[in-house]
Amino acid sequence: MASAVAAGHVFYTHQNGIPELRSALAEYLSGLGRAPIGPERITVTFSGMNAIMLAIQLACEVGDNLIAVDPVWPNAGGMAKLVGAQVRSVRMDHGQGGWTLDPDKVAAAMDARTRAVFFASPGNPTGAMIPMETQAALLEVCRRRGVWLIADEVYNRLAFGRSAAPTILDIADPEDRLVVVNSFSKSWAMTGWRLGWIVHPPSLGPTLAMMTQYTTSGVSTFLQHAGVAAIRKGEPFVASMRRYCEQGMAIVCEALERLPRVRLGPRPQAGMYAFFEIDGMPDSKAACLDILAKTSVGLAPGCFFGPGSETFLRACICRRPEVLAEAMERLAPALG
Amino acid sequence: MASAVAAGHVFYTHQNGIPELRSALAEYLSGLGRAPIGPERITVTFSGMNAIMLAIQLACEVGDNLIAVDPVWPNAGGMAKLVGAQVRSVRMDHGQGGWTLDPDKVAAAMDARTRAVFFASPGNPTGAMIPMETQAALLEVCRRRGVWLIADEVYNRLAFGRSAAPTILDIADPEDRLVVVNSFSKSWAMTGWRLGWIVHPPSLGPTLAMMTQYTTSGVSTFLQHAGVAAIRKGEPFVASMRRYCEQGMAIVCEALERLPRVRLGPRPQAGMYAFFEIDGMPDSKAACLDILAKTSVGLAPGCFFGPGSETFLRACICRRPEVLAEAMERLAPALG
Repeated sequence: MASAVAAGHVFYTHQNGIPELRSALAEYLSGLGRAPIGPERITVTFSGMNAIMLAIQLACEVGDNLIAVDPVWPNAGGMAKLVGAQVRSVRMDHGQGGWTLDPDKVAAAMDARTRAVFFASPGNPTGAMIPMETQAALLEVCRRRGVWLIADEVYNRLAFGRSAAPTILDIADPEDRLVVVNSFSKSWAMTGWRLGWIVHPPSLGPTLAMMTQYTTSGVSTFLQHAGVAAIRKGEPFVASMRRYCEQGMAIVCEALERLPRVRLGPRPQAGMYAFFEIDGMPDSKAACLDILAKTSVGLAPGCFFGPGSETFLRACICRRPEVLAEAMERLAPALG
Repeated sequence: MASAVAAGHVFYTHQNGIPELRSALAEYLSGLGRAPIGPERITVTFSGMNAIMLAIQLACEVGDNLIAVDPVWPNAGGMAKLVGAQVRSVRMDHGQGGWTLDPDKVAAAMDARTRAVFFASPGNPTGAMIPMETQAALLEVCRRRGVWLIADEVYNRLAFGRSAAPTILDIADPEDRLVVVNSFSKSWAMTGWRLGWIVHPPSLGPTLAMMTQYTTSGVSTFLQHAGVAAIRKGEPFVASMRRYCEQGMAIVCEALERLPRVRLGPRPQAGMYAFFEIDGMPDSKAACLDILAKTSVGLAPGCFFGPGSETFLRACICRRPEVLAEAMERLAPALG
């Protein structure tokens, strides 16, 4: 990026993103999934959150509703509320086999004002990857109703033991009402850089250019050059990030599985989080505050992630092994 | 900024902006105007446009309307339409004395669904500074109706022969429904950096933090450090930028005044633009295309800036003297 600044990339820019980054992302995505993705389907954003903002602005207005497949990080719901839309929760089922989604429940939650369905796979906080057959059924439900499907794939490169989680882009038509959001924050650890992108129907490029014009007037050019560098040279880093998370997940899950009161279920196969319950702990929000005070270890309470998850706790596993080992040691008496 | 990146300022950040930049801006604004502005009234944004986005999201929703005082750059109106609000034009009067605003016309344009009035002073494209008595009357009109006033002051440091244009912050109460937007793009020439800020009522800090969370999740920390450096060390640059614009304005206006068909009015006392008419030219959009083809000099057509300005042309004066001299020489036959 410093070299991009020095080279003078500091003026107004293409509203969908600089051609170099759109091309780099198109090539990257085409190599990652089975479907070729052209640069005309890509718009660069100020972070994954800004990508979600654009997707929701595209789909929803006052009086509409958005269905959030949860447990899920609450920001998409927050943005929906910001445009005056209601948020309807469809909770994934949690059983012996882990977290699963029933697309019929999504269909049942829809009404005439439903404009969008939001889901994340791999999920935050669950780490669950929704099988492609289920995503296909979800897409079909949305197609039948003319509803937008917003797929958050920001953890797609942090699927353990594989190069990437399966992507819904493989099974969708280019002109499906589908927006896939992604970000440089997780796999490339460029969290504070605020750089992300969306994959959208090619016909929406000009609309998204205009929406970008009227919301941010485009992403800093030199940040975008950093994105090109990350895409072109970042694969070894992404692989190391995946190993780092896989190792962290193993440390945290092994420790949790040793605690008799903890119910974790199958270990997450992707992402940065372990999401678990503790027998006899009804209020995870109070528990988080209590645990933080006693152990100086921060957990996130389940209530953040949608109704029905109030008894859960989320641990972030994306830390150095020795830090995680120490944290789990301190947590053991509180969770045990 | 490079040093901020190297120092590791690359993580999630305070949603209203980093304390260093909010403090630097508070001190800067308190020194610039007559009213002390505390850091709790400042929220950092991804550019002036993103500042306008937040202001309009704060004020307007579907079915509301926003009054745009024009001629004005159309982005605020574009954002209003994006949230489903209508845009009502109140045109400034253009006479011997230049561009003037009649606050009664703004009052007359209001109805029960008017939520915000947007104006820019100094203006783009007019370069007009709205006198503080007029701004006070405008604020009073808004107070009476409980309507938000959004003041765009991005050109406030490019007022010729003075340190800064007068600011409405001098006459407003902190809890007035007033949002003042600004940017590092003009006075510090950091256009492509996408860094701006808003001054807002202190009570709205938490709301704006939440809105930031759900739209961009905050501005890249290292960009904000660049903003601190610009504020702390940038005054000589701002002064040179002002001289550069003043010189450019003189070159362009002198050339225009020599052309018998051009009606310019009093020379703009601020900003980056000259806005003028040509006798007998009814359609400035066709004229701009024609002039561009014949002279390779780009002008902006008046239709961009609101109804009633279709016969005007905007010239950007923020270029090197020799480039402007050459451009005006080429334009003379086309405009003369």
